[in-house]
Amino acid sequence: MEAAAIVLAAGAGTRMKSKRPKVVHEVLGKPLIRWVVDAARQAGVGRVLAVVGHQREQVIPLVQDDCEVVTQPQRRGTADAVAVCREALAGFEGSVLVLSGDCPLIEADTLAALVAAREGRNAAVAVLTMAPPDPFGYGRIVRDDQGVPAAIVEQRDATPEQQAITACNAGFYCFDAAWLFDALARVDDRNAQGERYLTDTVALARREGRAVAEVVADWAACQGVNSRVQLAEATRAAQERINRAHMEAGVTMIDPRQVWIGPDVTIRPDVELLPQVHLMGRTSIGPDAVIGPNTRLTDTVVGEGCVVDETVAVQAVLDRGASAGPRAYLRPGAHLCEGAKAGTHVEIKNSTVGPRSKVPHLSYLGDARLGADVNIGAGSITCNYDGVRKHPTTVGDGAFVGSDTMMVAPVSIGAGAVVGAGSTIVSDVPDDALSVARARQVDIEGWAARHRDQLL
Amino acid sequence: MEAAAIVLAAGAGTRMKSKRPKVVHEVLGKPLIRWVVDAARQAGVGRVLAVVGHQREQVIPLVQDDCEVVTQPQRRGTADAVAVCREALAGFEGSVLVLSGDCPLIEADTLAALVAAREGRNAAVAVLTMAPPDPFGYGRIVRDDQGVPAAIVEQRDATPEQQAITACNAGFYCFDAAWLFDALARVDDRNAQGERYLTDTVALARREGRAVAEVVADWAACQGVNSRVQLAEATRAAQERINRAHMEAGVTMIDPRQVWIGPDVTIRPDVELLPQVHLMGRTSIGPDAVIGPNTRLTDTVVGEGCVVDETVAVQAVLDRGASAGPRAYLRPGAHLCEGAKAGTHVEIKNSTVGPRSKVPHLSYLGDARLGADVNIGAGSITCNYDGVRKHPTTVGDGAFVGSDTMMVAPVSIGAGAVVGAGSTIVSDVPDDALSVARARQVDIEGWAARHRDQLL
Amino acid sequence: MEAAAIVLAAGAGTRMKSKRPKVVHEVLGKPLIRWVVDAARQAGVGRVLAVVGHQREQVIPLVQDDCEVVTQPQRRGTADAVAVCREALAGFEGSVLVLSGDCPLIEADTLAALVAAREGRNAAVAVLTMAPPDPFGYGRIVRDDQGVPAAIVEQRDATPEQQAITACNAGFYCFDAAWLFDALARVDDRNAQGERYLTDTVALARREGRAVAEVVADWAACQGVNSRVQLAEATRAAQERINRAHMEAGVTMIDPRQVWIGPDVTIRPDVELLPQVHLMGRTSIGPDAVIGPNTRLTDTVVGEGCVVDETVAVQAVLDRGASAGPRAYLRPGAHLCEGAKAGTHVEIKNSTVGPRSKVPHLSYLGDARLGADVNIGAGSITCNYDGVRKHPTTVGDGAFVGSDTMMVAPVSIGAGAVVGAGSTIVSDVPDDALSVARARQVDIEGWAARHRDQLL
Repeated sequence: MEAAAIVLAAGAGTRMKSKRPKVVHEVLGKPLIRWVVDAARQAGVGRVLAVVGHQREQVIPLVQDDCEVVTQPQRRGTADAVAVCREALAGFEGSVLVLSGDCPLIEADTLAALVAAREGRNAAVAVLTMAPPDPFGYGRIVRDDQGVPAAIVEQRDATPEQQAITACNAGFYCFDAAWLFDALARVDDRNAQGERYLTDTVALARREGRAVAEVVADWAACQGVNSRVQLAEATRAAQERINRAHMEAGVTMIDPRQVWIGPDVTIRPDVELLPQVHLMGRTSIGPDAVIGPNTRLTDTVVGEGCVVDETVAVQAVLDRGASAGPRAYLRPGAHLCEGAKAGTHVEIKNSTVGPRSKVPHLSYLGDARLGADVNIGAGSITCNYDGVRKHPTTVGDGAFVGSDTMMVAPVSIGAGAVVGAGSTIVSDVPDDALSVARARQVDIEGWAARHRDQLL
Repeated sequence: MEAAAIVLAAGAGTRMKSKRPKVVHEVLGKPLIRWVVDAARQAGVGRVLAVVGHQREQVIPLVQDDCEVVTQPQRRGTADAVAVCREALAGFEGSVLVLSGDCPLIEADTLAALVAAREGRNAAVAVLTMAPPDPFGYGRIVRDDQGVPAAIVEQRDATPEQQAITACNAGFYCFDAAWLFDALARVDDRNAQGERYLTDTVALARREGRAVAEVVADWAACQGVNSRVQLAEATRAAQERINRAHMEAGVTMIDPRQVWIGPDVTIRPDVELLPQVHLMGRTSIGPDAVIGPNTRLTDTVVGEGCVVDETVAVQAVLDRGASAGPRAYLRPGAHLCEGAKAGTHVEIKNSTVGPRSKVPHLSYLGDARLGADVNIGAGSITCNYDGVRKHPTTVGDGAFVGSDTMMVAPVSIGAGAVVGAGSTIVSDVPDDALSVARARQVDIEGWAARHRDQLL
Repeated sequence: MEAAAIVLAAGAGTRMKSKRPKVVHEVLGKPLIRWVVDAARQAGVGRVLAVVGHQREQVIPLVQDDCEVVTQPQRRGTADAVAVCREALAGFEGSVLVLSGDCPLIEADTLAALVAAREGRNAAVAVLTMAPPDPFGYGRIVRDDQGVPAAIVEQRDATPEQQAITACNAGFYCFDAAWLFDALARVDDRNAQGERYLTDTVALARREGRAVAEVVADWAACQGVNSRVQLAEATRAAQERINRAHMEAGVTMIDPRQVWIGPDVTIRPDVELLPQVHLMGRTSIGPDAVIGPNTRLTDTVVGEGCVVDETVAVQAVLDRGASAGPRAYLRPGAHLCEGAKAGTHVEIKNSTVGPRSKVPHLSYLGDARLGADVNIGAGSITCNYDGVRKHPTTVGDGAFVGSDTMMVAPVSIGAGAVVGAGSTIVSDVPDDALSVARARQVDIEGWAARHRDQLL
């Protein structure tokens, strides 16, 4: 298909009551406009133009990597918003989709159907229509005797008879590029709003003897987001659609209403997702993993059979059979190798925990490289920051680091070495050595009895 | 408005199956009776009388600060419950609201409308009516030819024709004080229950030639709580009402069913509330803050742009740009100044963390005063308790406290000082000094190799 | 009642898209097949036979303790699945229930009613029927002129008239054992599926002049689980039923949709369960306890008035008035005695915390025995593992263990002893002694000022 898409994203969205433009608000971790752009891409659209306006400096960073950005200097109606793309699409022939940038639930299949419908009949325009439970506020689809759309009439301009029509404009169109931009020049602003409506192109096409095509969509998939209440509703609808698909593919969820999965996440069968799990960004989960409850994974790779329990992870990697939590915090660059463990109240940043190595309790590891079969005692910490710079720590295969060991980086603990509990290690420990930094224990008999009332 | 209110709170609530009286059970952190008293106050009522009886020692502490408490010695019907206020209201002229103490969803506007309806017609009584989906069990509103309430007939006393009436008594009234108490003496107990019904005052007023006014309310806002199931339903209804109002004012919630906000909480626009957030008491949230998930804030002040992630806070203050969590615990008196951070697995009690100071990992701070730009290393702890008393710790501006430092209070670390990791600090550290309390590291080569099978 | 039950659990459940057989998937922590077996037991059934087949090695461990396991070598229809029990039930006289192993919501009362219905009329078979909202796919109940079931016709074999029947087979039966197995031999496979249907026994019984009885059940309680979506729906239905019963018995839940309670859990009145509470296995909760939010208790005993806040516990015991969390982790063998406390970021395994003893912050205790009135300072840890073996720690009554104390096990701290903060205790501390293992603090004045740019 040779198709382009124009995504309308210039509006303010005043009902959001927000300092931010509407289309940057997120559903399941993805901005509204990205849902629409990504649907266009999945439908096979080659060029995507984003029409920006209100607070465009917040919108542009979200689309500039893969869209052409066009600014609408003044917002004078939807026809004007499309017209500003005339120059960018000069010479383009084929289908031009026009898409509302605030409809995150629109599906790629629907957009592809819209293009196919227009091209199949060489129509000037194909419109997406729907039958919402309450049509008030939507443009109504006025049909001719054959039932073909003859015009779209906005709520404010509709006669009582027209207001009784239940078929409504969903706000998605596919145009013949060769016809569109010249036709827009023939759209006037003689209506209740005094704006130039894109929807007038339907009647215009018919007057000019061109065909108009129609695709009927499920209303729920066409809903725009105009308020925070609708943002929550769209989130719920997206959640339901995504979670159902995962369940049908073999993922268990105790309560799918309490699991949030972004649209770009992949999950293998026989994964179990407990309540309050958030999987965002490009996270992927291998088979047989158990995730949650109370777990958020962002851009994190979880291998087969991992157990991730009450854990927050960002840009982390867990190899097969690794486990985290309850209550681990894996920050960017944390890598748990096969069978490794980051346990309870453990935080790991930019560090590798080697195969079968354990960091079970109350530790902070930063900028560390642990070999295989290492045991890190409870409360042990890498002192990686000296107030100015971060420094590395390395621990060799099979080392046993006692509880409450401070590893003052840069420092290295050799393979097979043992560090006594409570030691502050400031210089490298040789392989197979015992290292202890510990004051002698002094017991003063009877002292506590004598000082019972003013202890320590 | 010169109005008083009598809140009926003497009942046992046996269907609650509780050792506690019904009206002390809570919806969104506020006892049922407080919802009703606060609605009366918001409606502009001057005096509020609480009629208590069953287990009144549990009810009185909830109302004694701003209500007059009247005891009903025996529970002999609603007329009797009002009659016990005769003495307290002797000489009072004006409107007297009578309110069910177990209806947390009643709104101030409704109460004000009830007073206005009575006063506008100088009625003896204005009744609040509603049309529940199932009228069984409610008193029915019997009307005269003009449609004006002529009587309220209880379920047990209703004829089959009367049982078919769908308009029901909501259990809220506004009376002419000058008429009420004398009229109550004329209410008898000739009914199926053998009790003196307050609802008989409607027919009595009509018989005595006085006007009766009516206000129609939404059934959902008048529901009483008689069981734990209804308590959960009322919580859900209150949650829905409060959360919708916040969303309409510009607050984002991914799922409003998973956020609980008390009625006295304030939230500024562009705040994001993630799932499992509980905001209770007098908590206030500044603009652009991100709260949650899994966060409970009670009587806590959160400034602009703060990030509060998986955190429990009670009576804490976070200034602009401060951050907490994931998994911080801020107890009473914790104060994070502008840009300060209480990080992961950190607990802070009665302590100030100065501007831009960081307590990032695995620390407990109690009774401490940290200046600006302080860095507290992972695992550092204030030893504020000697088994008998608590003692203070102070850390000066720009001090760098290494990991696993024990600050044995009372103790002070000077401005710009540095403390080596793993030190136990028992005496004051001068400004700009380096302080270390550390045993020498001893490495015994080959020891671990020789003891491989019976380590440490 | 002399009754046996045959539980059909040989199917693959391909729509589950799982490596595991369907009946081992869990609802509220209990495998589907165990719900059915337990319902049969509660109905008073003496012998339970489980018919296994597909991946039976995963099913058998779930039932072998209290069921007779019979293998169906090939799956050739429901009649065949029952027929394989012929030998095991040779000589058995009385009622034989045949139960679908994938219906977790079936209730014991319904099974008992089925047995009673059969026995009351000495029927060959009693069938459980229901009226699902959409009967498509279910076997239809064809009745005679008296309204008695005359046959069950499967969807594929039903005429259009039969397809209009709304009464459906629920998949539960009670048979006369003396008749059943011989009758099965007379069931043929002349149907659309080419299988031998158990449901043909109904028409067979009528042809042979035997009575057929019927019990009508609520459709919702008979639903089978065939997919992950249905597994989530069944979980929700079970949750609703169980939570409502607990609420009616006096348990408060802010939101019952966010609390999961296994069928074998006991809870006393005036317990409060906050959102995200999971009570599983044989957990029991004493009166007046407050549990949650974000708390999972498995096989754990919680005493009267305990507060358990953001805690994970497995096989732990909390005596009256003990408290845990926020964010405690109590592993098998953790025992908090009366009034004891495991506080914030504390993990306890196989240890007793004596009456009124406190472990308030950032500790790990393993294999320890603490007496009464002990105070464990923040960050203190039992070093119970030497890399090879686990060793015990004991702390006597009234001991005060300072913060960040490492107790290198095996070691004992005497009653009334005091340990200075930051000490590593390697040998036993006598009763009433002060023990300190601490390096001298050295302050180097001006050092930090001189090294400001290359700190530590």
